[in-house]
Amino acid sequence: MQHTQALQQLIDAFAMLPGIGRKSATRLAFYLVKQPPETAAQIAGAITAARERIQFCETCQNLCESSPCERCTKSVRDEHMLCVVESPQDLVAIENTHEFHGRYHVLHGAISPLDGITPSDLKIRELVARIGMGTFTEIILATNPSVEGEATAVYLKRLIEPLGIKVSRIASGLPMGAQLEYADKATLGRSLLDRREI
Amino acid sequence: MQHTQALQQLIDAFAMLPGIGRKSATRLAFYLVKQPPETAAQIAGAITAARERIQFCETCQNLCESSPCERCTKSVRDEHMLCVVESPQDLVAIENTHEFHGRYHVLHGAISPLDGITPSDLKIRELVARIGMGTFTEIILATNPSVEGEATAVYLKRLIEPLGIKVSRIASGLPMGAQLEYADKATLGRSLLDRREI
Repeated sequence: MQHTQALQQLIDAFAMLPGIGRKSATRLAFYLVKQPPETAAQIAGAITAARERIQFCETCQNLCESSPCERCTKSVRDEHMLCVVESPQDLVAIENTHEFHGRYHVLHGAISPLDGITPSDLKIRELVARIGMGTFTEIILATNPSVEGEATAVYLKRLIEPLGIKVSRIASGLPMGAQLEYADKATLGRSLLDRREI
Repeated sequence: MQHTQALQQLIDAFAMLPGIGRKSATRLAFYLVKQPPETAAQIAGAITAARERIQFCETCQNLCESSPCERCTKSVRDEHMLCVVESPQDLVAIENTHEFHGRYHVLHGAISPLDGITPSDLKIRELVARIGMGTFTEIILATNPSVEGEATAVYLKRLIEPLGIKVSRIASGLPMGAQLEYADKATLGRSLLDRREI
């Protein structure tokens, strides 16, 4: 016997989380059992509540507590623009720019054959169904400028274009405030290719 | 509104844990809400169970589920040797060597004035009370060979020696399999000072 049973089970539970190995899990478990009971209750309660209450919005597929979500029911948002993102975190990042006021669609991932993620694993069927309803005039593909995100964007472009709807892609290039000297080749190359008139 | 309330509360809960910042907490929260409900229930249950069931052993101060703990009640263990460690993890590390078969005492920390940890914050009062019962003939100080661990060892040595009991310290030196060339100065210096006849 190494640790007591309850402690070992707690370590095992923490080790199930991504990016948390046995050592981190042990550290977290020891930390937690030394905290006041309210702290442990709060964390356990938050886990249970989040898992019970959070669901996919039937429209945009974002995580929400009541479907359809607040953003999908807000009539103040532009109904003709649709921004497609990989994850709920990406949606929040775009919202924080205050530059987009249309609707969203969350794919929950990107196409990645090496990781076994195919289009059918993403919320693409739901996206096509939404676009098919004919309200959108422009689809902005805001997947990451990574190999997987680019592949997903190309796949979606081919899927949507035949429907006669404008498809755009967020710009890639040097980050604001960056220095050419330290930019990586791929980014600098892309910023040259995607140059625009001023 | 950024995330839904339940999600934000889960992120806040994870961010309370040591070594987990806002970004990691967000990643963990999103991971968890996408898992099957059983996974969330298992983790929440493990936290609650561990916090409810785990207590300090009244004798050795280790974490246990029933006090006094199994190790303290086992008559097969040497009643004359006491090994003093900083943490339950250290106790497990020593047990795994199979080189010690006596009793343990867990301090739950080391003296560290800079962090505001004084002797009264550790289980030293309980240690002195145990030693005062007169069954131990040797006390092994197995605190870490760090500044705090060394300071704690010196403090305990001064406290215990007047009682006429042998006090020893675990050896410091080159790790087994190490190479002199790459050893740090402090360790190599200590291994020279603590050299022994063969």
